Amino acid sequence: MKLASLRDGTRDGQLVVVTDDLSRYTPAGAVAGTLQAALDNWAAAEPGLADLADRLLLGQIEGMEFDEEACLSPLPRAYQWADGSAYVNHVQLVRQARGAVLPESFWTDPLMYQGGSDSFIGPREAIPLVNEAWGLDFEAEVAVVTDDVPMGVSEEAAAGHIKLIMLVNDVSLRGLIPGELGKGFGFFQSKPSSSFSPVAVTPDALGEAWDGGKITLPMRVDYNGEIFGRPRCDVDMTFEFPRLIAHAARTRPLAAGTVIGSGTVSNRDVDGGAGRPVKEGGVGYSCIAEIRMIETIADGKPSTPFMRIGDRVRIEMRDDKDNSIFGAIDQTAVQYVRNRSE
Amino acid sequence: MKLASLRDGTRDGQLVVVTDDLSRYTPAGAVAGTLQAALDNWAAAEPGLADLADRLLLGQIEGMEFDEEACLSPLPRAYQWADGSAYVNHVQLVRQARGAVLPESFWTDPLMYQGGSDSFIGPREAIPLVNEAWGLDFEAEVAVVTDDVPMGVSEEAAAGHIKLIMLVNDVSLRGLIPGELGKGFGFFQSKPSSSFSPVAVTPDALGEAWDGGKITLPMRVDYNGEIFGRPRCDVDMTFEFPRLIAHAARTRPLAAGTVIGSGTVSNRDVDGGAGRPVKEGGVGYSCIAEIRMIETIADGKPSTPFMRIGDRVRIEMRDDKDNSIFGAIDQTAVQYVRNRSE
Repeated sequence: MKLASLRDGTRDGQLVVVTDDLSRYTPAGAVAGTLQAALDNWAAAEPGLADLADRLLLGQIEGMEFDEEACLSPLPRAYQWADGSAYVNHVQLVRQARGAVLPESFWTDPLMYQGGSDSFIGPREAIPLVNEAWGLDFEAEVAVVTDDVPMGVSEEAAAGHIKLIMLVNDVSLRGLIPGELGKGFGFFQSKPSSSFSPVAVTPDALGEAWDGGKITLPMRVDYNGEIFGRPRCDVDMTFEFPRLIAHAARTRPLAAGTVIGSGTVSNRDVDGGAGRPVKEGGVGYSCIAEIRMIETIADGKPSTPFMRIGDRVRIEMRDDKDNSIFGAIDQTAVQYVRNRSE
Repeated sequence: MKLASLRDGTRDGQLVVVTDDLSRYTPAGAVAGTLQAALDNWAAAEPGLADLADRLLLGQIEGMEFDEEACLSPLPRAYQWADGSAYVNHVQLVRQARGAVLPESFWTDPLMYQGGSDSFIGPREAIPLVNEAWGLDFEAEVAVVTDDVPMGVSEEAAAGHIKLIMLVNDVSLRGLIPGELGKGFGFFQSKPSSSFSPVAVTPDALGEAWDGGKITLPMRVDYNGEIFGRPRCDVDMTFEFPRLIAHAARTRPLAAGTVIGSGTVSNRDVDGGAGRPVKEGGVGYSCIAEIRMIETIADGKPSTPFMRIGDRVRIEMRDDKDNSIFGAIDQTAVQYVRNRSE
């Protein structure tokens, strides 16, 4: 089953059920008006939503043409967005580029930060940027949405709390990160609003592409119309989603609609070294920071700039028949000008 | 105007309007069913809520007896909880106790962390604790709730976005903080669910106790039945709320219902040194960590333990007639035992 939230002038959008091939949709208002409402009562809502999906597939409901451009993020605002850093290779590269050692514990204890969840950007909406010097970057990630998770949940039980899966562009302002992390309280201004894929997908709808803990397909990242990254989501993922959920729930419960991210998908090269660019036969990258680290390690300084006004990133995933699974996040950086009266 | 969310079996509770003396209430469902719904459309909801408050005051609505025990946090779950650290004296003491220098920039650039907002505890609910070694502590703070705040808002304009004011117990697990901050991504497990005061109050209802940027009254913290702290909220507050809001909104908009915290209220002693305990004639503290720092600075080691099972904290504020303004947060630490089947 695939779900989306269509732009309708409300804060949470209109919940719709979408066909697996992303061609048609039908409103889900008879079951739940919004995705949060469905998640608040998932056990009751899920059969009704699945029934709509079945009838849409069988043609018993005609449905309407689905347009990814009309989508908000599936949860346009959420009560929690907690982003892990499960691909430790990414973290190791960041550290290596600045000559810092990766603590051994990073391989056994997940990194996770609390992200802002009140105002996500739609998958096809522009990314507003005040200042190019802030170092705008994308990060292609996978995220899961949970139902209510009890405090202290085990890793085994956590897997059963994964109700939906999405893609994310975890928008980052690299220029603000060093100063902010130096203050010791984690990210805040350096992590502005993220965007999520047009549709959220149930684990069963992924079939064999979901192994219970992670997706077994490559992430597809294109940048300014060129292939930028094709790293596999099931390679070098040190912490799978059930582990990330258990980490998040160690000292408090997680409310229904909690979104947990994987962190930037990142693969080592086949020889175990730092991943190579696609042009050099590697799988490439899910963020600009990573290619800049490779450049820094190789040449002493980065040569790929961060996103400038007009630059465009597209994040997608395809099944083994080359069909888009989640629809595409496709975003361009635009100049933001504050209304001085505000 | 004072608002509360009463426990009714739903996730968001029932929005009610409460008399200024906290004696009676009337349901607000005809205007908005939940506080988030009111904040989503505050300009339209506020007059209707104010009208209910007027009629309740005049006796045109009889109302029912208000019971603080029946309250959830005013926003039982929120889309954002961002906590500042505006009383830099508190931060300086933490650093001093561990022999670290406070960066000069901390006096000009606010510290703020993104907190978990999906599952707040009610003001009279117990604090579940798995392990006393985690170092359970309270932090008495003031928080404001905003309507929609545009990205890049000025400090001047930010003041007008403050719609409600509450007290907070920002529950902290001190034993988990050093390890977590050492990883560089900020707090996560070390900041479990917070609690908020029984009622949220509009700025105008505070009268002269609200100066547009901060509260001009003492915080009252009692611990295990004894006076623990009476620090003034308007003393040593380096960053006032409009500044904290502008800081939070620098790179992204804030959605209606955003909660911004002041950080632990903390006053220097009258001679400019570290604050003294109440028993020694000082204004005392808003958290256990601070008295432990004073003890460490004086004696080389702390003597006051963190909260143990059964310990109880009460956080309140009174007006110049000694009436409770927000109702009281009053919480006891209880042993949490995970259901092993979960």
